Amino acid sequence: MINWKNIEQQLINFLKEQLALTKLENVTVGLSGGLDSAVVAILCKKAFGDNMSCVLMPSQFSSQSSIDDAKKLCEKFDIKYEIVNISPMIDAYINNMNNDKLRIGNYSARVRMSVLYDISSRDDSIVVGTSNKSELLLGYGTIFGDIACAINPIGQIYKSDEFEFAKYLGVIEEIISKKPSADLWEGQTDEGELGYTYKQMDDVLKLLVDENKSKEEIVVLGHDGNLVDMLKYRIKANEFKGKLPVIANIKWS
Amino acid sequence: MINWKNIEQQLINFLKEQLALTKLENVTVGLSGGLDSAVVAILCKKAFGDNMSCVLMPSQFSSQSSIDDAKKLCEKFDIKYEIVNISPMIDAYINNMNNDKLRIGNYSARVRMSVLYDISSRDDSIVVGTSNKSELLLGYGTIFGDIACAINPIGQIYKSDEFEFAKYLGVIEEIISKKPSADLWEGQTDEGELGYTYKQMDDVLKLLVDENKSKEEIVVLGHDGNLVDMLKYRIKANEFKGKLPVIANIKWS
Repeated sequence: MINWKNIEQQLINFLKEQLALTKLENVTVGLSGGLDSAVVAILCKKAFGDNMSCVLMPSQFSSQSSIDDAKKLCEKFDIKYEIVNISPMIDAYINNMNNDKLRIGNYSARVRMSVLYDISSRDDSIVVGTSNKSELLLGYGTIFGDIACAINPIGQIYKSDEFEFAKYLGVIEEIISKKPSADLWEGQTDEGELGYTYKQMDDVLKLLVDENKSKEEIVVLGHDGNLVDMLKYRIKANEFKGKLPVIANIKWS
Repeated sequence: MINWKNIEQQLINFLKEQLALTKLENVTVGLSGGLDSAVVAILCKKAFGDNMSCVLMPSQFSSQSSIDDAKKLCEKFDIKYEIVNISPMIDAYINNMNNDKLRIGNYSARVRMSVLYDISSRDDSIVVGTSNKSELLLGYGTIFGDIACAINPIGQIYKSDEFEFAKYLGVIEEIISKKPSADLWEGQTDEGELGYTYKQMDDVLKLLVDENKSKEEIVVLGHDGNLVDMLKYRIKANEFKGKLPVIANIKWS
């Protein structure tokens, strides 16, 4: 059993220490109506009270339940929020560029990052990220989009464990029970796109990444070899998303 | 004297090696009409020929000479380009959010990043960055905006040295002779905003950063103490722009 009370305290301490290092007093958090940002918003509320800018950024592709659930969460935890409808910004892109749903999804993630950073500048605050460990390992996110932030309290928590943490924190049932989704188009679910449940993937990721086991060892334990291959491929193909730009090293003489 | 022919070859090798690591065959470069992106575009043309997507992204705040100069450069070096006018995307932001010129400038830099990444996805390519060493040290750029890229060939070249390199490469006179500017609003110049010329700043940065000298040592050499203080302050205040997000490290038991 994970001691979530203890983890909660560690993460609140982390948030306070990191903000103190910047000499600023406010944080900015984007709230999507999903699990990750709900957990982060609650942690920030506990760490900073009202010194938090909480921003809902629905687009024309967001489901209505996303915004309803985000609002309900804010009411339960007495979190002040503002709504920035990004539809006009996405329309300007679609009219100019393209109509492919994956590209629109990535563009939307970058618009949300841009709006959050704009608000953090307005409020002299830093942007708190909401990517969990499963997403970061799988590279299931947009570089310079939802992955972008100053600090991230939940980047070491696997998605399948995060549900328990969310229950402990009192996240509303609507958010806990919905299928994880980047909400980039109607009916999108993470597990539908990835082909496995987070529980299946995380069980293997823990063996692969945290325990450094080989495919053979993992398959012997009863896991699907195709799943192991898919995860290994994704980790390698997406590791650039967690790295800094590579700058040419020059020999001057 | 710097051997620019040798540096050019090192950077072409760097570009080829880095692209080969990704298994892709194309690069995407944003061309602003300024010196940095001109140098990078020429290097990419020499390294990859036509396997390059060169993108001009003027907004309603860009000066006409920027786009004219960018086009003229492309003609001289036989670089194919496309133009994405980002004005509608910036208008959608201004109508929704705000009218502060610095915030619009940062937002514009992030829209350009988003468009470049969108095009790089369309073309199976990687984005080549155009930040020079002076800008990176000073943090004179937008995080997750113009600083964002996969690889950067000129990040170790000081701006004041880059003029010589640009002349060696044959960058057109219009670009070499114009005052460096982020071109985020009419009449903006880097040196006007920063209060010193790049030559003044780079001479001190070389002593401060590359030779690790103290303020006292630098002032004795005849440099302005206020300039040293300003540079030290900017380096420290902006170093976060060159770092990855800080992820909370959890103790699980």
